[in-house]
Amino acid sequence: MSERVAILAHEKFPDRSKTANGLLRYGDREVVAVLDRDRAGDGVADHLPGVGDAPIVGSFADVPGAVDRLVVGIAPIGGGFDESWRPDVRAAIEAGCDVSAGLHYFLSEDEEFAALAAEHGVDLHDVRRPHDELTVSGARAADVDAAVVLTVGTDCSVGKMTATMELAAAAEDAGVDARVVPTGQTGIMIEGWGNPIDRVVSDFTAGAVEEMVLEVGDDHDLLIVEGQGSIVHPAYSAVTCGILHGAMPDRLVLCHEVGREAVHGYESFDLPPVADYVDLYESLAAPVSGADVVAGALNTSGVGSDADAEAAVDGFSRTLDAPATDPVRFDAGEIVGAIR
Amino acid sequence: MSERVAILAHEKFPDRSKTANGLLRYGDREVVAVLDRDRAGDGVADHLPGVGDAPIVGSFADVPGAVDRLVVGIAPIGGGFDESWRPDVRAAIEAGCDVSAGLHYFLSEDEEFAALAAEHGVDLHDVRRPHDELTVSGARAADVDAAVVLTVGTDCSVGKMTATMELAAAAEDAGVDARVVPTGQTGIMIEGWGNPIDRVVSDFTAGAVEEMVLEVGDDHDLLIVEGQGSIVHPAYSAVTCGILHGAMPDRLVLCHEVGREAVHGYESFDLPPVADYVDLYESLAAPVSGADVVAGALNTSGVGSDADAEAAVDGFSRTLDAPATDPVRFDAGEIVGAIR
Repeated sequence: MSERVAILAHEKFPDRSKTANGLLRYGDREVVAVLDRDRAGDGVADHLPGVGDAPIVGSFADVPGAVDRLVVGIAPIGGGFDESWRPDVRAAIEAGCDVSAGLHYFLSEDEEFAALAAEHGVDLHDVRRPHDELTVSGARAADVDAAVVLTVGTDCSVGKMTATMELAAAAEDAGVDARVVPTGQTGIMIEGWGNPIDRVVSDFTAGAVEEMVLEVGDDHDLLIVEGQGSIVHPAYSAVTCGILHGAMPDRLVLCHEVGREAVHGYESFDLPPVADYVDLYESLAAPVSGADVVAGALNTSGVGSDADAEAAVDGFSRTLDAPATDPVRFDAGEIVGAIR
Repeated sequence: MSERVAILAHEKFPDRSKTANGLLRYGDREVVAVLDRDRAGDGVADHLPGVGDAPIVGSFADVPGAVDRLVVGIAPIGGGFDESWRPDVRAAIEAGCDVSAGLHYFLSEDEEFAALAAEHGVDLHDVRRPHDELTVSGARAADVDAAVVLTVGTDCSVGKMTATMELAAAAEDAGVDARVVPTGQTGIMIEGWGNPIDRVVSDFTAGAVEEMVLEVGDDHDLLIVEGQGSIVHPAYSAVTCGILHGAMPDRLVLCHEVGREAVHGYESFDLPPVADYVDLYESLAAPVSGADVVAGALNTSGVGSDADAEAAVDGFSRTLDAPATDPVRFDAGEIVGAIR
């Protein structure tokens, strides 16, 4: 029987709740409720099309029926813990639920939560806590049998994780033995394994990706590595660069959101033209593994009509000189041929 | 009055004691003695030209006169603590000296040293341990009053730290109020402050550099930020990229070693042509701070004659279309005009 979970997404569902949405769309757990005090009384399906419905409730006390786990499904910039979440986490532990979070702030190091968890015999799972055996890359990821595809982006939160999941599913549908290599908290929560790349020692960034590629790369035909951030992000480019060189990809899929013109959260920084990203990612990959942008994934969720979205995808494809799609609105299968 | 220090470099001075040599060449502390049991009785100047002399002694007990600090000036591969150093560290603490080390093994977590240090009221400074308040970059480094120059490289160990120190000294000689922003263990020990960028959480790489730039950037006319690694290093590029975007430099100095053709320690990876590095560093910097390569620092230590070294520097300068020098063999002052 699959685990029953409640997902905390206060004041952020669904527009700023990437982890919650990922679990709803791609997870294999049963989502019993979403906690968002701003939308209590609504249903999940009212706000997020194409996922199973579940009630939105205002607090953990209002979750209908028993759940096995509370998942913190939002992560503010910086990864801090919002004290307004404390009563819900406390209530979950007291109800005997495990709690998972992908924050930089570790629940298991919070004095109150640690003591309560011990008292109630529940597990606090900090997905963003790296294991102790990580080390520097040996530059061996290219040796695996699988073809390695990396999703790269023009910014944070443009849909790299989503494109990764949709591409893997579409590849499987096309008869390709594909495996996701997750690198962020949501991907790790969905896949049930993985190194939280943004949290490892900076010298081990590439090595932590290499370790995952080596772990599964001989057992599949295709690995789709989840990218992070963007190579020109003022704060997060180090992680992006480490993934690019650690994964040693054969091919790249460029992910972008229609209308994104400035760096999310750093709006004084304009995004360069899409063509510049292609040049940058390919030039930077070349000395290590050599990888071209072979396809594009365009997030058109902000576009009203399908016709406009299709026109945007066509324009993106022309800019890339490669096939493109919106893997959610349209079909990731359209670009599987380019990446396999 | 400047701090009086003794430097531990047992069995490694001077050929494998990068930190000790850096402190002797560029530090402003008074080096009272170097500990190397293999060379006890010699003088520092017998082995390392161009630095002030000091006796080499066999143990801490033989250090002439009182010192304020013992610095571990060597770091074996792996960064471990060699138990043969224990009596000297113990003796230093018992004599009321602070102790600094740049090891992966933290002196402050060693049970004996921690207890002794508490008893004697001395400070154990593990320079490779990042402090707890680091966070993501706010992309504000460009706001400081100082011009920010970053040394970038074609590879590890081509002379970025040395170029940084020599440039700062040459700028001071030219009447410019310059300050080094150190990013690695040797630089941090020389300068007496700084974040060990290769040990911070990968998401905080840029932020840890920004923090330093903000700390000192309004108090000087010129900051020279010590770069690390190279932007196409298979293992360490994440750190390089984070420094590039965290420091938000105005200008770049490209550092290279004559004859280096493959990545040090990763010899199956050829270095790209020098001109490609210029394009890559400038293209990558452009969307965040915009910085051109305005000068070059060429390490010619492997070249026999000064005439050959000069020819190599001239060729490097032509490739960069910018002034270049070997800041050790010739004069860093030759490129100060380009960076100030």
